[in-house]
Amino acid sequence: MDKKQMTAALAALDNFAIEIPSWGFADTGTRFGKFLQAGAAIDTADKLADAGHVHSLTGCCPTVAVHVLWDFAPGQKTSEVAAQAKKFGVKIGSINPNLFQDQHYKFGSFGNEDAAVRKAALDHVRDSVKIGQAVGSRYLSLWFADGSNYPGQGDIRERKGHFEECLKATHKMLAKDQVMLVEYKPYEPAFYHTDIMDWGMAMLLSKKAGPRAKVLVDTGHHYLSQNIEQIVAVLLDEDMLGGFHFNDRRYSDDDLTLGSIDPYQIFRIFHEIHKFSHDTGKTPEIAYMIDQSHNIKPKIEAMLQTSLMAQELFVKAALVDVKALRVCQAKHNVVDAELLLKNAFFTDVTPALHEWRRKRKLPTNPLEAHRKSGYAELIAKERTHRRKELGLGGGGGFA
Amino acid sequence: MDKKQMTAALAALDNFAIEIPSWGFADTGTRFGKFLQAGAAIDTADKLADAGHVHSLTGCCPTVAVHVLWDFAPGQKTSEVAAQAKKFGVKIGSINPNLFQDQHYKFGSFGNEDAAVRKAALDHVRDSVKIGQAVGSRYLSLWFADGSNYPGQGDIRERKGHFEECLKATHKMLAKDQVMLVEYKPYEPAFYHTDIMDWGMAMLLSKKAGPRAKVLVDTGHHYLSQNIEQIVAVLLDEDMLGGFHFNDRRYSDDDLTLGSIDPYQIFRIFHEIHKFSHDTGKTPEIAYMIDQSHNIKPKIEAMLQTSLMAQELFVKAALVDVKALRVCQAKHNVVDAELLLKNAFFTDVTPALHEWRRKRKLPTNPLEAHRKSGYAELIAKERTHRRKELGLGGGGGFA
Amino acid sequence: MDKKQMTAALAALDNFAIEIPSWGFADTGTRFGKFLQAGAAIDTADKLADAGHVHSLTGCCPTVAVHVLWDFAPGQKTSEVAAQAKKFGVKIGSINPNLFQDQHYKFGSFGNEDAAVRKAALDHVRDSVKIGQAVGSRYLSLWFADGSNYPGQGDIRERKGHFEECLKATHKMLAKDQVMLVEYKPYEPAFYHTDIMDWGMAMLLSKKAGPRAKVLVDTGHHYLSQNIEQIVAVLLDEDMLGGFHFNDRRYSDDDLTLGSIDPYQIFRIFHEIHKFSHDTGKTPEIAYMIDQSHNIKPKIEAMLQTSLMAQELFVKAALVDVKALRVCQAKHNVVDAELLLKNAFFTDVTPALHEWRRKRKLPTNPLEAHRKSGYAELIAKERTHRRKELGLGGGGGFA
Amino acid sequence: MDKKQMTAALAALDNFAIEIPSWGFADTGTRFGKFLQAGAAIDTADKLADAGHVHSLTGCCPTVAVHVLWDFAPGQKTSEVAAQAKKFGVKIGSINPNLFQDQHYKFGSFGNEDAAVRKAALDHVRDSVKIGQAVGSRYLSLWFADGSNYPGQGDIRERKGHFEECLKATHKMLAKDQVMLVEYKPYEPAFYHTDIMDWGMAMLLSKKAGPRAKVLVDTGHHYLSQNIEQIVAVLLDEDMLGGFHFNDRRYSDDDLTLGSIDPYQIFRIFHEIHKFSHDTGKTPEIAYMIDQSHNIKPKIEAMLQTSLMAQELFVKAALVDVKALRVCQAKHNVVDAELLLKNAFFTDVTPALHEWRRKRKLPTNPLEAHRKSGYAELIAKERTHRRKELGLGGGGGFA
Repeated sequence: MDKKQMTAALAALDNFAIEIPSWGFADTGTRFGKFLQAGAAIDTADKLADAGHVHSLTGCCPTVAVHVLWDFAPGQKTSEVAAQAKKFGVKIGSINPNLFQDQHYKFGSFGNEDAAVRKAALDHVRDSVKIGQAVGSRYLSLWFADGSNYPGQGDIRERKGHFEECLKATHKMLAKDQVMLVEYKPYEPAFYHTDIMDWGMAMLLSKKAGPRAKVLVDTGHHYLSQNIEQIVAVLLDEDMLGGFHFNDRRYSDDDLTLGSIDPYQIFRIFHEIHKFSHDTGKTPEIAYMIDQSHNIKPKIEAMLQTSLMAQELFVKAALVDVKALRVCQAKHNVVDAELLLKNAFFTDVTPALHEWRRKRKLPTNPLEAHRKSGYAELIAKERTHRRKELGLGGGGGFA
Repeated sequence: MDKKQMTAALAALDNFAIEIPSWGFADTGTRFGKFLQAGAAIDTADKLADAGHVHSLTGCCPTVAVHVLWDFAPGQKTSEVAAQAKKFGVKIGSINPNLFQDQHYKFGSFGNEDAAVRKAALDHVRDSVKIGQAVGSRYLSLWFADGSNYPGQGDIRERKGHFEECLKATHKMLAKDQVMLVEYKPYEPAFYHTDIMDWGMAMLLSKKAGPRAKVLVDTGHHYLSQNIEQIVAVLLDEDMLGGFHFNDRRYSDDDLTLGSIDPYQIFRIFHEIHKFSHDTGKTPEIAYMIDQSHNIKPKIEAMLQTSLMAQELFVKAALVDVKALRVCQAKHNVVDAELLLKNAFFTDVTPALHEWRRKRKLPTNPLEAHRKSGYAELIAKERTHRRKELGLGGGGGFA
Repeated sequence: MDKKQMTAALAALDNFAIEIPSWGFADTGTRFGKFLQAGAAIDTADKLADAGHVHSLTGCCPTVAVHVLWDFAPGQKTSEVAAQAKKFGVKIGSINPNLFQDQHYKFGSFGNEDAAVRKAALDHVRDSVKIGQAVGSRYLSLWFADGSNYPGQGDIRERKGHFEECLKATHKMLAKDQVMLVEYKPYEPAFYHTDIMDWGMAMLLSKKAGPRAKVLVDTGHHYLSQNIEQIVAVLLDEDMLGGFHFNDRRYSDDDLTLGSIDPYQIFRIFHEIHKFSHDTGKTPEIAYMIDQSHNIKPKIEAMLQTSLMAQELFVKAALVDVKALRVCQAKHNVVDAELLLKNAFFTDVTPALHEWRRKRKLPTNPLEAHRKSGYAELIAKERTHRRKELGLGGGGGFA
Repeated sequence: MDKKQMTAALAALDNFAIEIPSWGFADTGTRFGKFLQAGAAIDTADKLADAGHVHSLTGCCPTVAVHVLWDFAPGQKTSEVAAQAKKFGVKIGSINPNLFQDQHYKFGSFGNEDAAVRKAALDHVRDSVKIGQAVGSRYLSLWFADGSNYPGQGDIRERKGHFEECLKATHKMLAKDQVMLVEYKPYEPAFYHTDIMDWGMAMLLSKKAGPRAKVLVDTGHHYLSQNIEQIVAVLLDEDMLGGFHFNDRRYSDDDLTLGSIDPYQIFRIFHEIHKFSHDTGKTPEIAYMIDQSHNIKPKIEAMLQTSLMAQELFVKAALVDVKALRVCQAKHNVVDAELLLKNAFFTDVTPALHEWRRKRKLPTNPLEAHRKSGYAELIAKERTHRRKELGLGGGGGFA
């Protein structure tokens, strides 16, 4: 790694903050059951503590995404949660309304044929926007489980109209410095049609909603074989890329740690972002967020792994010589163009990562530091004890 | 529909019994939550009652698949459950051990690297086999969630060895009139590798286990675009087809009602079975079972719909003129061969279905009869009341 | 089939013309080789003759799509081709430029980084537009093979810019009564990225091009499991649906006859169109076109089969009681909503089809009529003879 | 890279020979056309010369796969071809019969319902076996395009019977030191069913054929999302893995250079092979072969790239500490198990590759050496000239 590369790598890391989801520290699972972890977070304070611990080790996770329904007790002051976050050295990041869990959302929220449900959904979104304003959060992050399971069940066009209307109404609620992110997903939990099923739909609806509505790309929310980096490039070109939900998958929305299945794809996504900055001279405003909740890996280790992998791949992508690449592309020199990517991907960036961490007095190997810290044992013990005191059992199951 | 077709249709229906899953009547959902139904079954008796109701209307669902963990309270006498079933006019069908929900199954059951867990799994299977013998059930139906989420996590070949051993041990437990069914599934809940991922693996392991081990085809457990009817034809040819789990899907293991997404595919599967019988003069022993648990449709209506659709498509498939088809195939007359299937598929078989039901004094339209019966309202009221008395709330959620 | 249904069915057929592709009658194949047919068309006159023959039997295929490179000899007067068509009882339909076969298109046409190639592509499109004007064709049908095979090969955003520019330039060439159709395809022949890969991209570029640019939906050009009818509904809602290329597939862009693999999906697509007309009172202007070229089935029979299947499914879809459906949808009555579709799908529409044909003095069974006509034998003999005279061999192969 | 790793890496390379396909140097393409390269091979001698050139630069490609139909002119002495190969420093490797291109294979070869076609296919295979014996080739490599395009077209079970019979007959033709490889492919060119569609079918048929029939894994012949390394592990465990066809893909059978899309997957496949050797102490006999034919990249560069990438990933996989891995697996230490793979994957193995090449007096950068050699320019000129003299034009097209 030569000096120029090192400089590029360090600059890339300085501009790369990764948001951690509060729900990533709680016991979650698949529809076939949950495997409980002794150290799983019981309440919001636990989640913020764990997030703070991760940030203290990595230095790159300053904010925590919160889930309105799960992280704010009814009547709880939002300032309390913000204060808790501060105490643990992090800030509240994106605000995630929950528009899928309540019984009235059985047939959807913003797309529901029933006006009363749409109103309830809008009310919840309004509350979420206010929470965001109260805690100084920039992002309202919207995911809709809306869709249908059977042909004929839903009126596709009518539901689209409802979405247009409700998203416009949402946009009007935003303060000037707030941005709303619209996420897409091809299926699950809806299995016939999903109202916002792909980037094209998310962009169409976002453009109609208003200028501060942008598209959120969850790396696990695509049809098999779809080229995600192309979508990212197109959204950047249209000034419509708002952020990411990081995870990896092989089959479906598997929610595995980032880069665990196909690291080269993540690298290519980052490359498109770096290339955009290089070509336009602008650094796009992108919210990089993790969306994972682990059933098998220890939760804190999984968050560390994903953050570290994101940093590593982001740096590797920053090493692509874009100027040389453009020459190859103009000349249709396919082999050399590809090698510019491949060689950057396989470059050992450990020196840059260590250098960056040393400058910030961070452990060079955050995972090892975590294991040595005794934090995992501590919370396992304390939370097991507390769980007993509270009379809490473990997570539910399929039936 | 001419006379010859009518005769073929009625004969087909006489040989077509469909097993209903007890778990199809309880509140279930996706990992994003459950939408509760007032009439959802609370206990095993409820499930058997609902199954009995379905059979009383359709006449084609004489048995009920049971799930050992969910349907047999610890210490409960199996004869009680069998007696309950009898009371509601049905019999206990396949016995389904649960090898995925307990905490010790986090890393698998039969494939687990830990011998103690494998022993626990075998013990549970032994109990299940005994239950089967006690209630006179022919089928032990085995589905394994075993697999891994990350590259490197599991030792693929070692786990295969464990499976070979445990399945052989299971086969030894069987009484002479018991059959074990081995189900395959490409993914979920495991997201990197699943130990029994496809028909090839299920067949390989079944052949090693012993002569009474057969493959179970769940219509929703395939890679996208896989030709299921070919797998069925191959398994028939190898005398390795044991049974089906009926459902439909568009994306993943969506568990929708049979034929709701691609009825022609189900028709083609049935066609291969009829063709096998025609060609060999043998009626293969196949356990036709439903495996669905509905979150959106009313549960009893969904079971009725699936059973009726299965009957309808089974009859349509019986109308294919196999003799004429073989002539077309020999002559490579592609268009006419295809039309023989297509025309059978689009033939109106309502007359045959009505005739069959009239002969058995069943309602010609079982769904309508169910709605008129007041059964749904009755159980909704009674179970809501009972749920309150028992202090039961609704199903769990994702977080 | 009651009277009301019959009326609806006949009305639907009156508004449903299906365009046949000239290239569907020539010898084509896969990259592994071509299986030659004695009756395959040798020249444009043959293709028009075959298309005329199909129309004379079906009464629903009045136009023929032409492929500029393959159907117009250099220097040939377009009026000649139009006159030939007239002679065979058909008209020239959509004009299809060829922007993929010439050696200079190796790295794309409108998206090519090389300005000279883009210019050549625009020149060819201009010629095509003029041909369209000369023969009175309404549609310019654009499919681009543009894309790249390897990461890094192409500059995704730059290529997008070239497409925007060239499509705008194309729009300017159009006469007022001409419409340009922009087709999308996820992959093949490009295997890393395809510039216009999905409906979202086709719509984005079409909207930028101008008001007479619309999206063309090829039923075989989707990711596995994508919900095509939803895309159709969205495009209709945005007034951006221009037309269809009809075919079916199980795996990739398999180009099989329509409805041969999943007839229910085609039915649901047609249902969305009928529902749009019902809801808005407008009949959308849609170009229904076949795009298939058969290697296995006899070419004329394949075209007959596809046209007849399209008519059959179009009529079935017209039988859905949309008014009742909307009530079910409003009430979230999922089962009944689905049954309205399913029952229409399985309704026997033969009476309506026969009635419609009888009124037009067409054979009730066009396939049978074709076989009895001796046409296939005639052209096989004549073209075999002509091929010899011309010293023509058979099609090429893979290597 | 420490000393122990270096030793492991060098040992791995010594056991890793990669076979190049003769057809990879000829002009080929997609069904939409061929993009011609001036330096494309015209005849078998050209192909062998190019292969020899690649081997002289890489030192790891000592054999050349030949395609009977394309590489042996009727009446040509096989000894001539072997002598040509020798002249260019390579040997004839696997023998590939062609069972798909002749017109009589329209409906299949070994699976064809027509006994005469099956006999023709067997005759061609017999000739191929004899060629193999004459040139001292160990492998008969069998790929069948057999299948059907439409439901009903083929008799799936009857065709399976024909395959069983013909493969047994083929096995009987083999000399004792010959091995037959049976390849599978899910689709293309058949689009409804393919007779040998997956590893399960290939293994089933191979086991029936005889002990010297093994399965050939083409890395591009799988359903989307299928776990290829698991298949490899299972085949190794069953002693049924015969060899590989190397390529990469994102969508279908895209035939891209190895590792260009998902290098981590190829690494994991190699890891399973190394792990098998480590666990059993046996080095499995595996034929590593490339199967690619390039339309976009320069053909020789593509072969170099694939060979070098194969070496690089094979060495990386050899660096996984299998002993430590097994400890992690036994303890279900998921994170550390994964990191053992990930860290090996990202280790810079350039030193080992250079060392290995230096020892053999090979250029450390074979691609660069090729470019400097002037070979590409030389053959472009010479072959262009020869092509003119022979009156040869370019490749065919779609229509």
